[in-house]
Amino acid sequence: MSDFPKRVSINEDGPREGLQIEPNYVPTAEKIALIDALSLAGLKEIQTAAFVNPRKVPQWTDSEDVVAGINIRPGVRYTALYLNARGLNRAIATGRLFVEGGISLSASATFLARNMDMTPDRQRETRREMIAIFKTAGVPITKGSVNAAFGCNFEGDISLSRLLATLADVFALAEEAEVVLETIGLSDTMGWATPQQITRTIGAIRERYPDQSLSLHLHDTRGMAIANAQAALAMGVADFDTSVGGLGGCPFAAHKGAAGNLCTEDFVFLCHESGIETDIDLEALIEASNLAERIVGHPLPGSVRSGGTLQKIRSRIAAV
Amino acid sequence: MSDFPKRVSINEDGPREGLQIEPNYVPTAEKIALIDALSLAGLKEIQTAAFVNPRKVPQWTDSEDVVAGINIRPGVRYTALYLNARGLNRAIATGRLFVEGGISLSASATFLARNMDMTPDRQRETRREMIAIFKTAGVPITKGSVNAAFGCNFEGDISLSRLLATLADVFALAEEAEVVLETIGLSDTMGWATPQQITRTIGAIRERYPDQSLSLHLHDTRGMAIANAQAALAMGVADFDTSVGGLGGCPFAAHKGAAGNLCTEDFVFLCHESGIETDIDLEALIEASNLAERIVGHPLPGSVRSGGTLQKIRSRIAAV
Repeated sequence: MSDFPKRVSINEDGPREGLQIEPNYVPTAEKIALIDALSLAGLKEIQTAAFVNPRKVPQWTDSEDVVAGINIRPGVRYTALYLNARGLNRAIATGRLFVEGGISLSASATFLARNMDMTPDRQRETRREMIAIFKTAGVPITKGSVNAAFGCNFEGDISLSRLLATLADVFALAEEAEVVLETIGLSDTMGWATPQQITRTIGAIRERYPDQSLSLHLHDTRGMAIANAQAALAMGVADFDTSVGGLGGCPFAAHKGAAGNLCTEDFVFLCHESGIETDIDLEALIEASNLAERIVGHPLPGSVRSGGTLQKIRSRIAAV
Repeated sequence: MSDFPKRVSINEDGPREGLQIEPNYVPTAEKIALIDALSLAGLKEIQTAAFVNPRKVPQWTDSEDVVAGINIRPGVRYTALYLNARGLNRAIATGRLFVEGGISLSASATFLARNMDMTPDRQRETRREMIAIFKTAGVPITKGSVNAAFGCNFEGDISLSRLLATLADVFALAEEAEVVLETIGLSDTMGWATPQQITRTIGAIRERYPDQSLSLHLHDTRGMAIANAQAALAMGVADFDTSVGGLGGCPFAAHKGAAGNLCTEDFVFLCHESGIETDIDLEALIEASNLAERIVGHPLPGSVRSGGTLQKIRSRIAAV
């Protein structure tokens, strides 16, 4: 089991992606409180807001106010979502965010057609435009990603060859723009991945792209997120997107019970109990998860929040 | 990944262990309906009742009536819990149950002391008495089990050497009684196991007991059950206890959010998507899980029930 990483980086997506799907508007002060609770727990990268069309995403009409209100903790990367020049410039204008570029493509043409009214050719065009926008703004482009990388509710299974072809398209766009990608991101947007598929896929990608590190974005739609994360850890993956309490879900995924992302505290528990460092205070993170649950006003799926940590029990026993 | 089994056996514990922890009494007819829905879905072993002291376990005052009411499906093993001669004889008297003996010991002396007011010596004595009862009744003894095999909320971590010593005690009892154990059961009674621990433990047990098959009973207290099951599958384990909808939990585990067992339908989903046969109709199983949720009157933790199967999506796409 020597491929397990010694340390993992966690990108907390709960405040942005998690709250976005919530039907009720979360007041600005509560968004800020959640972000501050997460940085206090030791999260080093937190997606805090979405600079997108407020008519399409009413939850994020207050992005500027949220970012302005955060208690900036040194060493923490606060990030945001932006999908065009206007969004990017709004993010830059806050002066408080870590702004980075990426190139992402969908492995599912059907998903693109149904949800974005777009062909793969047209998506590549939009990416070229976005790359130009990043370059003009002097924003580094470091990550190439594939969405719906493992399967799609509209297209069905995504084969490994389809995924690799999409990834090759991402790298072709990067090469065309003279960009060197450092990280490959794979997103299981609609929760299709299984552990064996994760193992096979990561093996194939490592063989073709030995110089890039890997990053995973896993949804728990069918309860496989933690098993998929474990399979990725065993393959040496050390970079994960997670969501506190398991907040979130894909609003475009077209199924009733769109479960959230890989739950941050359950994943941190898995890491700590496997001897993998995260620099996160799990008890403080559970407090942040309790806060998230109060904020959204309904039960969140994470388990460690109710099951409790083992470290707490060990300390209690040691104190007797 | 050649160690993965081609087929797994699933022992459904939901009706007995799952309902037992429910605060509200479940009417006899609803218990029967759940058991029948599970056998209809293709479950081949179902624990249906508990022949124990009704004052201690008020949920199971109607064990005889439940067993009498089941629509017995050929090829299905209907089992029950019994902890003494009286319980065993009640189970035998139904004439409808698959009656089997076992020898189980707790790896945690503290758990024994706190919950059973018993020393390990005294527990071995009770096991000798039970073995004699099984022998008198002509009931075969096939399984040796260790409870709290991976950790304990009272004792803390259970080391591998402690687990192996307890298992040696189980085998010593079997040898003393001239019983040949076919199966070793490990129960993560309080949800302490992690995937790496599962891998290590199973490797060590296989080395010492190459002739016995392994069976796992996993609780999802801290969200690790499916990742632990995956780790066990990768080690070739082909026999699992599960609980429909993730029903259940250990009533003596002394923590507030005692989560249930490994969820049957999530585990079956993992198996099918990994090419492992179960002989179970997953859509019918999800119907049984929906029934279980209606019966207990509160949300159950399973994910595939709300996320939906991939097979359903594939069929829909193929039909277009």
